[in-house]
Amino acid sequence: MPQVLNTRDAGFEAEFTHLLGMKREDSPDVDATVAGIIADVRARGDAAVIALTERFDRLALTPETLAFTPAEIEAHCAQVPEGERVALELAAERIRAYHERQKPEDARWEDASGASLGWRWSAVAAAGLYVPGGLASYPSSVLMNAIPAKVAGVERLVIACPTPGGAVNPLVVLAAKISGVDTIYRIGGAQAIAALAYGTATIAPVDKITGPGNAFVAAAKRRVFGKVGIDMIAGPSEILVIGDGTGDPDWIALDLLSQAEHDQVAQSILITTSQAEAEAVMAAVDRHLAVLERREIAGASWRDYGAVVVCETLEQAAELSNRVAPEHLELCVDDPEALLGAIRHAGAIFLGHWTPEAIGDYVGGPNHVLPTARSARFSSGLSVLDFMKRTTLAKMTPEALRAIGPAAETLAISESLQAHGLSVRARLDKLNG
Amino acid sequence: MPQVLNTRDAGFEAEFTHLLGMKREDSPDVDATVAGIIADVRARGDAAVIALTERFDRLALTPETLAFTPAEIEAHCAQVPEGERVALELAAERIRAYHERQKPEDARWEDASGASLGWRWSAVAAAGLYVPGGLASYPSSVLMNAIPAKVAGVERLVIACPTPGGAVNPLVVLAAKISGVDTIYRIGGAQAIAALAYGTATIAPVDKITGPGNAFVAAAKRRVFGKVGIDMIAGPSEILVIGDGTGDPDWIALDLLSQAEHDQVAQSILITTSQAEAEAVMAAVDRHLAVLERREIAGASWRDYGAVVVCETLEQAAELSNRVAPEHLELCVDDPEALLGAIRHAGAIFLGHWTPEAIGDYVGGPNHVLPTARSARFSSGLSVLDFMKRTTLAKMTPEALRAIGPAAETLAISESLQAHGLSVRARLDKLNG
Repeated sequence: MPQVLNTRDAGFEAEFTHLLGMKREDSPDVDATVAGIIADVRARGDAAVIALTERFDRLALTPETLAFTPAEIEAHCAQVPEGERVALELAAERIRAYHERQKPEDARWEDASGASLGWRWSAVAAAGLYVPGGLASYPSSVLMNAIPAKVAGVERLVIACPTPGGAVNPLVVLAAKISGVDTIYRIGGAQAIAALAYGTATIAPVDKITGPGNAFVAAAKRRVFGKVGIDMIAGPSEILVIGDGTGDPDWIALDLLSQAEHDQVAQSILITTSQAEAEAVMAAVDRHLAVLERREIAGASWRDYGAVVVCETLEQAAELSNRVAPEHLELCVDDPEALLGAIRHAGAIFLGHWTPEAIGDYVGGPNHVLPTARSARFSSGLSVLDFMKRTTLAKMTPEALRAIGPAAETLAISESLQAHGLSVRARLDKLNG
Repeated sequence: MPQVLNTRDAGFEAEFTHLLGMKREDSPDVDATVAGIIADVRARGDAAVIALTERFDRLALTPETLAFTPAEIEAHCAQVPEGERVALELAAERIRAYHERQKPEDARWEDASGASLGWRWSAVAAAGLYVPGGLASYPSSVLMNAIPAKVAGVERLVIACPTPGGAVNPLVVLAAKISGVDTIYRIGGAQAIAALAYGTATIAPVDKITGPGNAFVAAAKRRVFGKVGIDMIAGPSEILVIGDGTGDPDWIALDLLSQAEHDQVAQSILITTSQAEAEAVMAAVDRHLAVLERREIAGASWRDYGAVVVCETLEQAAELSNRVAPEHLELCVDDPEALLGAIRHAGAIFLGHWTPEAIGDYVGGPNHVLPTARSARFSSGLSVLDFMKRTTLAKMTPEALRAIGPAAETLAISESLQAHGLSVRARLDKLNG
């Protein structure tokens, strides 16, 4: 049974606060192990990566076989059935079209003092995408990470994807090819992150590393942050559905379960103004859970972290949703546009009954790498901007310096930074002398 | 003596690589101490903050005196001399004007399938700015952190600034007032970061924490990252000047020293095509170092980390600069616009002889919080975007779902995510049935 809350109950505030504070992540402390692995890769390079891959992935590699050859890539791609290839290509095209619109503008202008100011965006030179092996090896995540990087203009784009026991997911290889990835390394874990960050004789270092991974990968990303850029450290997935009684309970139930089936610590929440809808959705969830392939995972998630909240108005529902700041928010209401203005914090919003969250996972266009664990209060999903950086520009004229230089000198002196002041003064003296 | 390199020397590549790899940061391992402080603040709230402030800052506070009162703020502001007040106001006005242009646009469009897509930017609700006490208490940093937050639309903006022994920098208080800061807490260190991230009875938690600090503050920011957003962890400052022999050696020397005087681990590098300029600048640096107030700090920085590189062409200079990816880059050349296109990685660029870097520290307009330690390869200076987040929007019509839903279903099944597929299929069945 999920938690069932009603805003009219006396204990509601305490129960809702408890829901917000639920700690879903069980991150084992692997930091010491990861520190050792990173040190080993920095010291021994390829030899360390190969030894660790043999140990963790039961796969014997050489420097020559660290990366897939073009022929191997072609062979794996050829195994993908036509239907899945077409679907991946449609997804890639839609994701590319959406992200093309995110490309930021450069700017340059002259202000009243005559100074020329502005900024210029440029792509990071090289990026590495981590793709988990095994069960959580999702081709859609390859598209969602690689396409924004390519749209940004990243020149060298590589993937690290472990192939435990040599098992390869051909869809991942095809997704990489469709996205324009240059090289796929069959390595994983903290050793892959270390190799991407510091480089080895065979693997050139990158400037930015993105993509999901297990506790070892997450700890390694935290450790190499600063040496390279990283994306967010993603937590377990979550969805919040706001209903007004106009939705199909079956659809809402499946939407809730499509988060729950990811992970037993995923969280699915329904907030509805309709007691009848709450009850019908719960019944529908139970019905689907009886037959769902991943019913053990989804059932545990729904039982331990699921919640159904009955409230009185949609404004109240929006307020509660803002406190959750959900990764995915579905507005399963009659007039989603009217409700949109009341939503302040969410990673992605899906408007109306015809927009199941699963559309956003694959073919909607927006990115599916989104802020979890309430971090939508302060962060955004992955975008083209994550693979670019902005350089600010300033150019003074003698007149501009005459106008604003003295203020800089005054502030420099007030901060006891004499050379700062002198660097301005020397130029002003020339102008005045 | 700084390192002196010439690209024509046989050992140049090794020497330059050594320069790039120099580790300037000596970050003591304070992580265990910081973990204890954060746990204490989470457990005991105000009582812990007050006890730690008494211990580290020799200052006895109560919950009532944690924050400055409006009357105290007025009294401190009244102490600021007229000249400095006017200079701060000019700086604030220019910084605000520059950052206003960074405000991002929302977007919403309909694609060929009939789906409505887009995104919406919104401000984080509350932000906390850390301002160091003592020597490195810079009013200019208050402006550079607070103004982008206000321009972004942050509703509640607070400062944490320790006042060791009760010593207050009136310019910091005035800068906070000019920037529109709501509350100034007289607390610092890891305890201030913990209080801002987790909240206490008196201090409401914030969503984002920015601003520089010592090793304890940096370690605390790393630890609370995820619970709240943080800006970068800044390292020691650096400047790179590219010269072509047309600059005034005195001006270049002062620009190099204005970084060196920040910190003995700051780094100042000159890359010039003119051997004569290299020699004249080194002589000018020595001349100024003899009399500079902060000559011990600046001298140590120049001796231990300074470098002068003589190369043959400006293209070569740009390439070397790109490998450094400096925080501050001055193009002290005859035609800086022509050189600009060759620069790929830099936090901020200052064009031409009339643009000393110190202008950018105070009154230029662009932010002075910039990526250090080669991180301009993958990150940007502080901006309005650091105080905003983007929510993606997607709305399907029945027709759009009919067009792209089957591809989503195919990919969901290929990833063994049955409920994802069913959530799309249930809607398609309704359309077809």
